[in-house]
Amino acid sequence: MQAVELIRKKRDGNALTTAEINWLVEQYTHDHIPDYQMSACLMAVYWRGMDARETSDLTLAMAHSGEELYVRDSISPVVDKHSTGGVGDKVTLALAPLVAACGVAVGKMTGRGLGHTGGTLDKLESIQGFRTALSREEFMRVLTEHSIVLAGQSDDLAPADGKMYALRDVTGTIESIALIAASIMSKKLAVGASHLLLDVKVGSGAFMKTLERARELAQTMVSIGQLAGLHTVAAITAMDQPLGRAIGNALEMIEAIAILHGEGPPDVSELCYHEAAELLLMTGVASNPADAEERVGQAVRSGAAVAKLAEVIAAQGGDPHQIEQPHLLAVAPVRSMLVAPCSGYIAAIESEQMGLASMYLGAGRFKKGEQIDHRTGFILQAKVGDHGHVGDPLVKIHARTEDEAEAVQESLLACYTWSDAPVLLGSMIYDIVRPL
Amino acid sequence: MQAVELIRKKRDGNALTTAEINWLVEQYTHDHIPDYQMSACLMAVYWRGMDARETSDLTLAMAHSGEELYVRDSISPVVDKHSTGGVGDKVTLALAPLVAACGVAVGKMTGRGLGHTGGTLDKLESIQGFRTALSREEFMRVLTEHSIVLAGQSDDLAPADGKMYALRDVTGTIESIALIAASIMSKKLAVGASHLLLDVKVGSGAFMKTLERARELAQTMVSIGQLAGLHTVAAITAMDQPLGRAIGNALEMIEAIAILHGEGPPDVSELCYHEAAELLLMTGVASNPADAEERVGQAVRSGAAVAKLAEVIAAQGGDPHQIEQPHLLAVAPVRSMLVAPCSGYIAAIESEQMGLASMYLGAGRFKKGEQIDHRTGFILQAKVGDHGHVGDPLVKIHARTEDEAEAVQESLLACYTWSDAPVLLGSMIYDIVRPL
Repeated sequence: MQAVELIRKKRDGNALTTAEINWLVEQYTHDHIPDYQMSACLMAVYWRGMDARETSDLTLAMAHSGEELYVRDSISPVVDKHSTGGVGDKVTLALAPLVAACGVAVGKMTGRGLGHTGGTLDKLESIQGFRTALSREEFMRVLTEHSIVLAGQSDDLAPADGKMYALRDVTGTIESIALIAASIMSKKLAVGASHLLLDVKVGSGAFMKTLERARELAQTMVSIGQLAGLHTVAAITAMDQPLGRAIGNALEMIEAIAILHGEGPPDVSELCYHEAAELLLMTGVASNPADAEERVGQAVRSGAAVAKLAEVIAAQGGDPHQIEQPHLLAVAPVRSMLVAPCSGYIAAIESEQMGLASMYLGAGRFKKGEQIDHRTGFILQAKVGDHGHVGDPLVKIHARTEDEAEAVQESLLACYTWSDAPVLLGSMIYDIVRPL
Repeated sequence: MQAVELIRKKRDGNALTTAEINWLVEQYTHDHIPDYQMSACLMAVYWRGMDARETSDLTLAMAHSGEELYVRDSISPVVDKHSTGGVGDKVTLALAPLVAACGVAVGKMTGRGLGHTGGTLDKLESIQGFRTALSREEFMRVLTEHSIVLAGQSDDLAPADGKMYALRDVTGTIESIALIAASIMSKKLAVGASHLLLDVKVGSGAFMKTLERARELAQTMVSIGQLAGLHTVAAITAMDQPLGRAIGNALEMIEAIAILHGEGPPDVSELCYHEAAELLLMTGVASNPADAEERVGQAVRSGAAVAKLAEVIAAQGGDPHQIEQPHLLAVAPVRSMLVAPCSGYIAAIESEQMGLASMYLGAGRFKKGEQIDHRTGFILQAKVGDHGHVGDPLVKIHARTEDEAEAVQESLLACYTWSDAPVLLGSMIYDIVRPL
């Protein structure tokens, strides 16, 4: 096979065969196809797209490009969860222990934040001593002993994805449904859970800006899961304003603990409980929606959910007292309050801009590998639909210095749109996409 | 500027600005943009195309990427000619001295053959001692002293084109009208003639397979010339069967000499004389078509045209006796005759396949840098429209060995299609595209 022939074939709008896709991914992973051919090929895929069979083949080839964990061979059912990312999205932090407390094992590998969206790994690392770089043996031991493990994404899993993603990032080929779906699903298939819940965010603060694109991505990933034997369900959920009230790593960890206590902000709590119930239904642990909701509520009320978080934190070297007493988490030295410049209803909070503002405080990274400050961020005092008056508290800023706290105010205020008329909020969950 | 932003812009179907195109070409030429970004960009250009202004900007940026000769500053008018390439296309070999003999200077840089199409440079090098690697000073001296120079393409001219062409070749981005036009015209602009005649071949043996594509390429190049101040005319001509009767380097040189004597095959001779007349009209040396044809005929009949070829051969170190007595050119050791396997009219001769067959004899190269044998090739004994009987001479094969002469026969026969009914031949020249 010749790489240039396959580029031409895709360029001309033809589907690549399974053998051709396997060859491309294998040769590229082993540096036998140079980046300049793969980038032309990726642009051709961006242009022409891939059908369901091609996308599934690409995903499997990437999943098979390195080590594979097959966690479901050791414990079953075992669930995995992935969110396409948003601002203030701490759902995984609460969802994983909540589901594990309900008797469903959770084996989760997770990544760092980049740009305006945070990463679950960074949020977890706000806990003192918590280790996320686990060997394969540690991962499997923690999972089987505690029914939950929360680890960093291993570079040995789906290395083709890591290599292709880095190339796509600098060649304008990120925003392809087929390539996004293959990238996400290849890592999930390499872990090898039995059930996967996807949270596809849609809205101004999300990667998918329209419901149509979000639905296409959700359907593509559910279809890949179906073809590859991984029971996958995708929730399409709103990311029109930051999720919950906390933005920033330790601040979001604290909010996740509140959710597990049943004391979190309503939007993010409901989303978390609903997704947990969906996982109980998918795995057959709950027999119907009412049963699932009841089990989730019981795990929260009994304290089993927050105890499960403390358990996994301890199992991975973290300090569980920081879960039991979240005030022990490191706090930013400067806290100041941004107040409302006018009276009225909050009509919109531009979450992408707010994510960027939090990066300025050190809560996120502009480039891979940058250090972040786990302590900084924002606590929203009011959300979309709330009414307030001039001078009412709007955002509590947690910053490293007075200067940074001051400097961020203008861009924070620019995130807000006000209305004289009341603002109606829609549902958090737009749709649930299940296998056909 | 960021390369990835420009890739995205083109990917989304937007036109790049002049400044953006200049920056891309300059940064790429100096290795500040890596191949993997340029190849993604080229695929986006392949997909979205470029408008006339962008294509002209790209061409000028490539023309300015290295040394520039500005030959028209030393001698004017001075003409240049380019053919998009075909099988048996020796027109430039005869056209250049013919036009120069009519009093119009010709400054021509030319390339080597690759694949099924030959290169003028290779054909010229069948003359013993002929040097085509000229310094800038030699090029200008031969041109001003003899009104003609025939040199190899300098790597110092339009280096961006050389670099981009090599990348396009391995990334499936050759067949873009904008990129083909920019590649051809950038080299012509860097030489800097005052007038340019393009021969855009169309048909089974040409790069452009349809008249529509050929016309689009011709119009694009004429428009670039117009925007860049180079008076350009494009002839769209037939390449449905090999041009003339000779295929192979020395064999085509001999046929070119015959054309200059007025003794060449009718198809290629008429094309050559017609294009020469067009150049005399373009430059104003002839006042009308009849005057132009008369001057061309006179140069042939007087022997001035063939004398001009001998003159430039001598000026560049070649043996002019080989022009005066072409039988002095090296001949292949083996000559054998392929005969017609049936009776009837020749309906078609597949020229691309015939070009490939000549490569097998050593007359062309599969890869850049390969040595070729100047002596080998074919002399067609019959062409499309001719009638013959079983056993009549069909192709005279000039080969290095009996085995190679034998081995090539089957693929040669496969080039022919026969008909019981007479076959009508169309015109060689489909159209002439002039500036608007």
